[in-house]
Amino acid sequence: MDLCQTTNVGPEVPTYQDKTMPHLVILYTGQLDAEVNMTTLCRQMADAMLTVKDEEGKQVFPTGGTRVLAYPAPHYAVADGGAAGKAAGGTGDYAFVYLNVRMGRGRSEATQQRAGQTLLEEAKVFFAPVMAQRHIGITLQIDVGPEVFDAKHSNLHPLFNKA
Amino acid sequence: MDLCQTTNVGPEVPTYQDKTMPHLVILYTGQLDAEVNMTTLCRQMADAMLTVKDEEGKQVFPTGGTRVLAYPAPHYAVADGGAAGKAAGGTGDYAFVYLNVRMGRGRSEATQQRAGQTLLEEAKVFFAPVMAQRHIGITLQIDVGPEVFDAKHSNLHPLFNKA
Amino acid sequence: MDLCQTTNVGPEVPTYQDKTMPHLVILYTGQLDAEVNMTTLCRQMADAMLTVKDEEGKQVFPTGGTRVLAYPAPHYAVADGGAAGKAAGGTGDYAFVYLNVRMGRGRSEATQQRAGQTLLEEAKVFFAPVMAQRHIGITLQIDVGPEVFDAKHSNLHPLFNKA
Repeated sequence: MDLCQTTNVGPEVPTYQDKTMPHLVILYTGQLDAEVNMTTLCRQMADAMLTVKDEEGKQVFPTGGTRVLAYPAPHYAVADGGAAGKAAGGTGDYAFVYLNVRMGRGRSEATQQRAGQTLLEEAKVFFAPVMAQRHIGITLQIDVGPEVFDAKHSNLHPLFNKA
Repeated sequence: MDLCQTTNVGPEVPTYQDKTMPHLVILYTGQLDAEVNMTTLCRQMADAMLTVKDEEGKQVFPTGGTRVLAYPAPHYAVADGGAAGKAAGGTGDYAFVYLNVRMGRGRSEATQQRAGQTLLEEAKVFFAPVMAQRHIGITLQIDVGPEVFDAKHSNLHPLFNKA
Repeated sequence: MDLCQTTNVGPEVPTYQDKTMPHLVILYTGQLDAEVNMTTLCRQMADAMLTVKDEEGKQVFPTGGTRVLAYPAPHYAVADGGAAGKAAGGTGDYAFVYLNVRMGRGRSEATQQRAGQTLLEEAKVFFAPVMAQRHIGITLQIDVGPEVFDAKHSNLHPLFNKA
């Protein structure tokens, strides 16, 4: 079964076989919007994704297929709701950031781990000042998706895949 | 193991065994809200889902169980951040739309592919005017979910499953 | 393969091995924000998660790792778009709530089902007044994630894991 369906819609909008597409979706407690610049985090994480190399030194995530989207949750609840945090001298308004990467199948385990460590380091550096100031939990997971159908239609890839 | 837990809460709120539930979640870069009507896309995609038939010509996605939710990301980063797009005469503010369908287990591969192609065509038609104007990437994936527990509680289904 | 990568960044910000991390993400049609208090739902669902016990009577979800995030969709389409609901005396503006729990691998099926039933009951009680007033569908699913990389970095856990 070829999981990557492609359709040629003409020279104006080429489409591409691309099983390597990654995206990173960041879900977080909305109070963080007042404390950090999440657009900056998105850019830094995208840049970090672009640095990941496989065993042959080849860029793992294609530039045109690298996307980061971040969503503040307007409603949330974390842990005990704040009692333990207040008792420890915090505000009790815990923060949580969940970074979820979805990448294509067929990468080596070493590449998956390298990607994970690279992104984790980037997130830790970004959130270090916040973590020094408040209670916050950060989780980073990489999923290899269970898709049974996968199609891309894009005029972005040609910008980066020149002959 | 029966993955579909049901509970009968009385005639006022019937619940249903329904392994066929699909939903479509659309994640996209938020600048698109100024360029297209995403509520219209939701409706068109829902209508397209309702047209999908299986090998026996039976509607694949039950009307009462078809849902589309679209979320603009207020924070995002795509590809190289814009340099290549500007060099190609664009604004450099790339757009990205990720359409993720989650459908129940047990469908044939042919049905999965037919559903995917139907939804992909709908999305391509919808975004064609946008794609002629800007840099944008569209990805459509169908997942067959890894759920270990699945429960529905609804007063919608009875509207469509009349004796 | 150890799926739980941990990094020790010093005594100020301990990190933890934690394969038991759950989170609950709630996606819903945005009109519900005018009808129910979703922050209250988040808190009630988190509290319900904390009550779940395994076969030995041990708390399944660690307090410091329990998080609920809820996202109203500004754009949506449900079922037939409203005709059947209007014919049945409703407004035709159907609501939909999708509660998706992601929990770690390695739990017994009995624990997964107990967690699901506990959370389903909590959601049904919360939405009972709404369900008596409008057309609404609720789906609760628990996924055991397909992650290939999993890292936590948190100063929340120490609040609840005291020696």
